[in-house]
Amino acid sequence: MRLNKWINIVAESGLELLRKQRKKQKKEQTPSISELCNALLSNKGEALGTALAGEVVAAYATMTRKEKTVFFQMLLEKYNPDVEQINTYAKAYMEEKSRSAFQKLSEAVESPRQSLIRRINMAPGGTQTIVDIRRDLLKTLKEHTELKMVDDDLVHLLSSWFSPGFLELRQIDWKTSAHILEKLISYEAVHEMQGWKDLRRRLEKDRRCFAFFHSALPDEPIIFVEVALVKGISGSIQEILARNDKQEKVSTTDSAIFYSISNCQVGLKGINFGNFLIKQVVMLLKQELPQIKKFATLSPIPGFMNWIMSLRKSENEMTLSSEDLEILKELDNNDWFLDDEICKRSKSLLMELCTHYLFHEKQYGKPKDPVARFHLSNGASILRLNWLGDISPKGIGQSIGILVNYHYDLKTVTENHELFVNDGEITVSKEFSELI
Amino acid sequence: MRLNKWINIVAESGLELLRKQRKKQKKEQTPSISELCNALLSNKGEALGTALAGEVVAAYATMTRKEKTVFFQMLLEKYNPDVEQINTYAKAYMEEKSRSAFQKLSEAVESPRQSLIRRINMAPGGTQTIVDIRRDLLKTLKEHTELKMVDDDLVHLLSSWFSPGFLELRQIDWKTSAHILEKLISYEAVHEMQGWKDLRRRLEKDRRCFAFFHSALPDEPIIFVEVALVKGISGSIQEILARNDKQEKVSTTDSAIFYSISNCQVGLKGINFGNFLIKQVVMLLKQELPQIKKFATLSPIPGFMNWIMSLRKSENEMTLSSEDLEILKELDNNDWFLDDEICKRSKSLLMELCTHYLFHEKQYGKPKDPVARFHLSNGASILRLNWLGDISPKGIGQSIGILVNYHYDLKTVTENHELFVNDGEITVSKEFSELI
Amino acid sequence: MRLNKWINIVAESGLELLRKQRKKQKKEQTPSISELCNALLSNKGEALGTALAGEVVAAYATMTRKEKTVFFQMLLEKYNPDVEQINTYAKAYMEEKSRSAFQKLSEAVESPRQSLIRRINMAPGGTQTIVDIRRDLLKTLKEHTELKMVDDDLVHLLSSWFSPGFLELRQIDWKTSAHILEKLISYEAVHEMQGWKDLRRRLEKDRRCFAFFHSALPDEPIIFVEVALVKGISGSIQEILARNDKQEKVSTTDSAIFYSISNCQVGLKGINFGNFLIKQVVMLLKQELPQIKKFATLSPIPGFMNWIMSLRKSENEMTLSSEDLEILKELDNNDWFLDDEICKRSKSLLMELCTHYLFHEKQYGKPKDPVARFHLSNGASILRLNWLGDISPKGIGQSIGILVNYHYDLKTVTENHELFVNDGEITVSKEFSELI
Amino acid sequence: MRLNKWINIVAESGLELLRKQRKKQKKEQTPSISELCNALLSNKGEALGTALAGEVVAAYATMTRKEKTVFFQMLLEKYNPDVEQINTYAKAYMEEKSRSAFQKLSEAVESPRQSLIRRINMAPGGTQTIVDIRRDLLKTLKEHTELKMVDDDLVHLLSSWFSPGFLELRQIDWKTSAHILEKLISYEAVHEMQGWKDLRRRLEKDRRCFAFFHSALPDEPIIFVEVALVKGISGSIQEILARNDKQEKVSTTDSAIFYSISNCQVGLKGINFGNFLIKQVVMLLKQELPQIKKFATLSPIPGFMNWIMSLRKSENEMTLSSEDLEILKELDNNDWFLDDEICKRSKSLLMELCTHYLFHEKQYGKPKDPVARFHLSNGASILRLNWLGDISPKGIGQSIGILVNYHYDLKTVTENHELFVNDGEITVSKEFSELI
Repeated sequence: MRLNKWINIVAESGLELLRKQRKKQKKEQTPSISELCNALLSNKGEALGTALAGEVVAAYATMTRKEKTVFFQMLLEKYNPDVEQINTYAKAYMEEKSRSAFQKLSEAVESPRQSLIRRINMAPGGTQTIVDIRRDLLKTLKEHTELKMVDDDLVHLLSSWFSPGFLELRQIDWKTSAHILEKLISYEAVHEMQGWKDLRRRLEKDRRCFAFFHSALPDEPIIFVEVALVKGISGSIQEILARNDKQEKVSTTDSAIFYSISNCQVGLKGINFGNFLIKQVVMLLKQELPQIKKFATLSPIPGFMNWIMSLRKSENEMTLSSEDLEILKELDNNDWFLDDEICKRSKSLLMELCTHYLFHEKQYGKPKDPVARFHLSNGASILRLNWLGDISPKGIGQSIGILVNYHYDLKTVTENHELFVNDGEITVSKEFSELI
Repeated sequence: MRLNKWINIVAESGLELLRKQRKKQKKEQTPSISELCNALLSNKGEALGTALAGEVVAAYATMTRKEKTVFFQMLLEKYNPDVEQINTYAKAYMEEKSRSAFQKLSEAVESPRQSLIRRINMAPGGTQTIVDIRRDLLKTLKEHTELKMVDDDLVHLLSSWFSPGFLELRQIDWKTSAHILEKLISYEAVHEMQGWKDLRRRLEKDRRCFAFFHSALPDEPIIFVEVALVKGISGSIQEILARNDKQEKVSTTDSAIFYSISNCQVGLKGINFGNFLIKQVVMLLKQELPQIKKFATLSPIPGFMNWIMSLRKSENEMTLSSEDLEILKELDNNDWFLDDEICKRSKSLLMELCTHYLFHEKQYGKPKDPVARFHLSNGASILRLNWLGDISPKGIGQSIGILVNYHYDLKTVTENHELFVNDGEITVSKEFSELI
Repeated sequence: MRLNKWINIVAESGLELLRKQRKKQKKEQTPSISELCNALLSNKGEALGTALAGEVVAAYATMTRKEKTVFFQMLLEKYNPDVEQINTYAKAYMEEKSRSAFQKLSEAVESPRQSLIRRINMAPGGTQTIVDIRRDLLKTLKEHTELKMVDDDLVHLLSSWFSPGFLELRQIDWKTSAHILEKLISYEAVHEMQGWKDLRRRLEKDRRCFAFFHSALPDEPIIFVEVALVKGISGSIQEILARNDKQEKVSTTDSAIFYSISNCQVGLKGINFGNFLIKQVVMLLKQELPQIKKFATLSPIPGFMNWIMSLRKSENEMTLSSEDLEILKELDNNDWFLDDEICKRSKSLLMELCTHYLFHEKQYGKPKDPVARFHLSNGASILRLNWLGDISPKGIGQSIGILVNYHYDLKTVTENHELFVNDGEITVSKEFSELI
Repeated sequence: MRLNKWINIVAESGLELLRKQRKKQKKEQTPSISELCNALLSNKGEALGTALAGEVVAAYATMTRKEKTVFFQMLLEKYNPDVEQINTYAKAYMEEKSRSAFQKLSEAVESPRQSLIRRINMAPGGTQTIVDIRRDLLKTLKEHTELKMVDDDLVHLLSSWFSPGFLELRQIDWKTSAHILEKLISYEAVHEMQGWKDLRRRLEKDRRCFAFFHSALPDEPIIFVEVALVKGISGSIQEILARNDKQEKVSTTDSAIFYSISNCQVGLKGINFGNFLIKQVVMLLKQELPQIKKFATLSPIPGFMNWIMSLRKSENEMTLSSEDLEILKELDNNDWFLDDEICKRSKSLLMELCTHYLFHEKQYGKPKDPVARFHLSNGASILRLNWLGDISPKGIGQSIGILVNYHYDLKTVTENHELFVNDGEITVSKEFSELI
């Protein structure tokens, strides 16, 4: 018998039990989620183990968006740490510096919310529910910034539970179960898949796909990366995704191109697995395929178009000549990239601006572009810009068709990372440095 | 390729990298574990992911007991939270009551030790190392009580990571891999197994065995329980363990006897899985075998002999008649239980005293006997005492041969648990109540 | 390491070896398949085990259709049993009636072709090649009837190797590997699947799919059956295949409808697995779902249209009235079934004719319709005709839209089977008998 | 659900069905195995598929040795081919030379026994029963030589079903299921294992174990081979089996020593898998461990002692000098090999005689020693004799303590094999040739 079935049996038995108890106590109404949460933090919760937590999970699953917001408010108001207590214990610790004083302080600072969330996590499906709670909370945060304290607790616990050491790396290929593969299709965030035929191309012998899984979310990928094995660094996503592309013989390839990294769980936003995933895959491929010498991404520049628009509206410090502005007007035509004439005119300007955007445009001392920030912070370097590397509507609409290769050279990632984190310094290739 | 192999590849690649960097930097000596820990908490740790953590893991594996104590001292002294800072932030939060003030306070209260341990946990084998660190620390604690603060941090994190929701319940039978089974033999804590033949008897069709596993300790059971399916509540462990015992036809059994629960990881001491394990197994067996009506343990009373000795030495409030003391003298002969005459004389006295010990002898308001405390706190009730239920040297030496059945009736566990936890009240069967 | 990879290693090593030997012997040309077959039946074959057989397999894979025919001719001419020898040994056995005489006769009667095929079967991929050989041979048989003797040997061995006892029954669901599922899509022979979405509907919770596999054709289904769990006997394939069909709650269903059985390997034609597959699945479903009371097929009548055409052309003994012939003319319009008027006019006539066709039209004493022959010979009975049960082009074109339910009642299959096989008697339901 | 469970369900359902039918027909007695066999070959067998065959399997399982002999006699007498018919069809074929005539002849020559056995093979557990039937028959053959005709049919079918292409090669290690490992312990035929500790030594990192499995005998090894990875060709089995032997680092080994090959199924005696197993394992190890250069066995000479005894009794053509006979008398003392003096005196004589025995002593033109015959026929060569290579009672008692290394050099096996099979020529190493 598989575990999943077991967990369900356990949960069902527990729930049945709860129902009998209630009947006996002549409580005919189902308790509210707020009553359930109270019970869960009490002795009852300890005695019944997973059953009460399971009811919270079941109750959350049926709530409307509005009810969820009320639930979040309750989490904020009823499960806060006690300020007075913290202060008292902080003072006591200051004086005594004893272990017991510190323990009291620690307990006082850990919000009851965290204890509650830990208890929910005991239920079958508990972890998934907590990830879902955070997904829903993130949507609500924009309007209800006060709920950020609830989010802090969720992030604290989820970061601990989704520690890289607890993630299982699995290779995904065409022999993988259909119900996992179908999730890749729907979770793919960078270069959309239209269906099974698109997916199949990405799982052929000259492609690789790896995902992280977590034992508490069985059969749910957490994040996955897609890799193309090719000769020479790829500059065009069209070539990589082409279905009728003739397959490369793996033994003659020399480069591994990471062309897509997709986070699957919105509720785990901000908990960084990508760094680990990329580096683990680099090491694995190095081992499996010693002929592969270069590891690089083929990445979009999602903030480039917006920045160009701000330039055109003069909302930016940098100003452009009227000539340049004239050229940029062409971008208003969705199909500009099909016109060789326009391409010819605009290429050098756009490549130059893109170089500037990636290298010079900063926010809090880090590159404005989120993808650049991610890879550079991981210790990668900028290798090359690729003109018209992605002419899909999304590619044109966000990155003005340009793709970057970020180079993952394990020999330099530590150095690069330290320079970047400490001094904001960006490492680039000789080729790219000439553009600057 | 299996994950384990991958993790090793990743670790090896990472380590090789580190060595190259050091060579380049002309650091020829391997850094000390203390330097490694420093590096791990710095940027370097983030950049290299698991490699540095892996070095800490590798370094710890080769340390002597003495070096480990030095390492624990370092953990205590160098990675403490900053008292001043806590006080400042506590005051600030008291005044502002803002999220950012609370965040600062929370961070200040979480000791750098915890961050360090989290980082170690990223390495392949990291979780196992942390469990090992705690195992070694527990040994050291007796002499170095100051290290309890280090233990607090380990317990905090391990409790979170080994949340029941993250444990996988697996049935163990004779088809299980030999390298898991061999661990059961060595971890069995209650009724020792002499080897494979003993084990095999415990995995026949009228026996059940279940264990919890955790994804970060692959192939290492965390805790396991052994169950005998029998007709009527068993009162004798000899009968259950007898190798040449004729097997019960499962379809005619009506009781499931939990005759052994063994924690496998010393480093997880105090993190309670037993409660969950027993209840999950009860629910599973109920589902699989509807004919099973009673679920009970067959448990030792490990503190009974010690308590009797204290009575005999009059170290106890309770005083015995000189007649009774005379009878108890017989226990000094190791083989007393083989003598029918002595048994006849002593049985009623010992059963009475045992009833008193279990029901009345308390420590901090809870039963003195640890096994009684465990099951009663889980919501079980005392069902029956069994005279000469365990005549092994250990059974005679600790429990004076008596075994208890604790009854797990899911319909009453909540009530029992609440009565016990709130009022210290012990639920007993009619049979047992007559003994009182 | 998985077996497949191993087998390939073994084969490759063997082939490399062969090549070296040839080089040494200065045979630079690759030997012909005919030379390879010779070598395979000689000592060399025994010594090198699978390598030589592997070369035959490799050689066959690259042959053109024409070369294959030449190869088949060679199999026919060069590997025949020796007539003289048979006669001599038959006489000897007639006289001696000894074991050794019988052994000689047996060996003489077993054609060298069979020995050769057995040797080919030792190669990795050997069984698949033999199945392929038969597939190709079947195509050639029409023109080269003399090759039937080769086919006899193939059938003899394949029947023995694909004994039901060697087949593994696997349930197929949405968790099955994509590379197996993709084969179901392409092998589905009765009701075509357009792609993954069609397939997914057939693997939902109220559907079942089972396939036989054989260890020598890993990952290749041999035959599969698709079942719908429904309330009441289904009469319409449209309803079963409808993608937006609301799913039946399995617990409320009472009938299992076998709506499609597809043989996957053309080369195994005539080796009957369907009988076993249906009955095994009936027994399994009875066990898993005790609420299911009726097991029936929803089957086409593939020969019905042809028979009707022969009636219309008066190529048949039976003659129709001119009125009836007039009605049947409507069938020439492909969309006749969309016209309620026509349906009204033709329904009773077509249902009557269909009843007659199924029940009375025979060939060699058995029903003319191949599907009827198959199910009735298995011991099923005719339950019901379903007007416009299949209005797909194929359904209209072959079965004039009518579908039959054959009833598999395990209690009567033996009796039905014996009546059918011995006396040609067809068992029918009361409902159907009234139509006759 | 696993297949095994399914098969059982299917069988049980079928049997239940049969019982109901019998009840209906008022046959209260269980039919005899002879009635069952009759029914199985009739229509009933076809209709009910596996159920009737299952009854034969069940009936056989409960038969006494005497009943089995009666059963074998029945198989011999009632299921023989029809001599007259064979003769008639042989004549007809001689004249007609047509396919249909040949088909009739083939069918007539295939004994009804074979059809019956094929039908039994359809039952769950059928193949195992047939293997068991042959095991029991082999015991009976000595007294009832007439039953050899039954054995011929069993061998014919089993050879076909256990074709190497249908066997699955699996690596066995300490992670293998205990219920498989326990079988290795009991099946080990060459160097007995005392229990799990012995086994464990043979599954350490510097050892390899491979077995063939067949899909119809799940979890039953067919044959297995044990290999030691060592530096230099081993000459002592004591060293290989020593439990406290320090393990060799695999990366520094250069030789793979096949020190034990055990057939597990007596009922498959004479069906040769060993040849395939050894060569496949050689190829696998070559691939996995390129550093391994030599592949050799460490084999007993089981016929040596008997031959020496015949020499001593002058039952042999060869005569020994009285001096030599004197020396050989020492062998009557079981512990002679512990006496250095005796060893010194006897070594050169015994080594010389052993060389002679292996190289010159023949039976039907092949070496008298069965192990020599096996390896030399596979194409191996004699590499070296090892004095006191096996001083276990069995080693001393059969091989007078001497072990041989047979060398498997894939480059020469074909040549060696052909020389051996065609000309009886034995290939030997330079070292061994000097002894001759």
